[in-house]
Amino acid sequence: MCQLLAMNCNVPTDIVFSFTGFALRGGQTDTHHDGWGIAFFEGAGVRHFVDHQAAIHSPIAELIKNYPIKSKNVIAHIRKATQGEVMLENCHPFVRELWGRYWVFAHNGDLKEFAPVLHGPFRPVGTTDSEQAFCLILQELSERFGDTCPPLPMLRAQVEKTVRNIAAHGTFNMMLSDGRAMFAHCSTHLHYIVRQHPFDKANLSDEDVSVDFSQVTTPNDRVAVIVTQPLTTNEQWTAFAPGEIKCFVDGLPQKRDFEQI
Amino acid sequence: MCQLLAMNCNVPTDIVFSFTGFALRGGQTDTHHDGWGIAFFEGAGVRHFVDHQAAIHSPIAELIKNYPIKSKNVIAHIRKATQGEVMLENCHPFVRELWGRYWVFAHNGDLKEFAPVLHGPFRPVGTTDSEQAFCLILQELSERFGDTCPPLPMLRAQVEKTVRNIAAHGTFNMMLSDGRAMFAHCSTHLHYIVRQHPFDKANLSDEDVSVDFSQVTTPNDRVAVIVTQPLTTNEQWTAFAPGEIKCFVDGLPQKRDFEQI
Repeated sequence: MCQLLAMNCNVPTDIVFSFTGFALRGGQTDTHHDGWGIAFFEGAGVRHFVDHQAAIHSPIAELIKNYPIKSKNVIAHIRKATQGEVMLENCHPFVRELWGRYWVFAHNGDLKEFAPVLHGPFRPVGTTDSEQAFCLILQELSERFGDTCPPLPMLRAQVEKTVRNIAAHGTFNMMLSDGRAMFAHCSTHLHYIVRQHPFDKANLSDEDVSVDFSQVTTPNDRVAVIVTQPLTTNEQWTAFAPGEIKCFVDGLPQKRDFEQI
Repeated sequence: MCQLLAMNCNVPTDIVFSFTGFALRGGQTDTHHDGWGIAFFEGAGVRHFVDHQAAIHSPIAELIKNYPIKSKNVIAHIRKATQGEVMLENCHPFVRELWGRYWVFAHNGDLKEFAPVLHGPFRPVGTTDSEQAFCLILQELSERFGDTCPPLPMLRAQVEKTVRNIAAHGTFNMMLSDGRAMFAHCSTHLHYIVRQHPFDKANLSDEDVSVDFSQVTTPNDRVAVIVTQPLTTNEQWTAFAPGEIKCFVDGLPQKRDFEQI
């Protein structure tokens, strides 16, 4: 199994603190050493870093820990291979374009008897079940809505439909973002926290590092962090229920009947 | 105008030497400071780095100069904005997937009255003429060959056809690779060199750096480097003719009637 980390914010925020603890799980405090990756939305663009080295040995992971890239939507993944060899093309997150926007996807889990018919323009490059699932989600979005990205409630309904069908094949903890919304589905383990005013100090569980968010934020900032296992020891993380899908926008989980954005 | 650099080899090779000189043109020895980017094929996967900072100020460019990523196909670009703002989504190279393989594209030049009808699955995310051109190339490949990547001679013929149509709109120096072949089209300036046994020493034009390739290669290695302006002072570079398209495979420019690979 792999580990997932995502961030969704109302202002561009750096993920250095969370990534520092998370990256240690790639070979030091945990055994997820079959590659890693991270993707940052920046405007409509995406910075995408993948490496098939363990995160703790990767010079690119070192760069990320020291280079505060600010983003409103980030997805990171540390891989413990279950299906697909340890090769660059099998490292998550995966990136594709649909409707003139980039989509980023990462998955933790294992799907059984999952062989979707991919007859649309999205085909896997690597050999993971995960990339097949991503292609299927985009194919069904594209078939359902044609040429134009629909309003978010309709988008969400379709994503949920495909995700539930995929999740019936096994374990499908996943994160998906189009740079605007962050969708997260939990089969087994997923936790989230919303940090907002008044900000406080947080201590990493994986390393003796803490940060006082009140020193690096404004009262208007709001940041949701979603992760396989909580990253800090002194904050209140909320566990997803198995089968739960959440959609985060501007750092907040959205109600099912949320307004069109 | 921007600057382009590409490498096509028969064995995975690092581009540290060439990139070191090339990156200096991003704000030091030349004025191309509106972002930069580089993409490396590694197996079927791609490492893709883009930054809207000048290459000489970019911590990511610093990483590339010091981290010998080995690849058989690399495309790099330093941007001087002509169309499209200085934003991450406008940085080359661009990456898309077609037929279950990644395609990488970069362009130097400026297209006039170029507004292709993009009705297929490839849409620009940013606002450059370049990304529109890339989407058009992939759309026409996809329309011409349907679901399956054709043999290289057929692929090359279609790429050439679309590229010539696009080039009629202005300056279109471009590089395109699917991880197997490297296509290069010259409107104004493009040069290449094939380095092979017996290897010799080369001196960079942009910095007081030299490398003795005989110390870092085997007799079977072959590396083609394609660039806007020659990178070294003591080697024989070949200039493309205006309007010339070349296709490199395994470090060699291919004859027009080359065998199917």
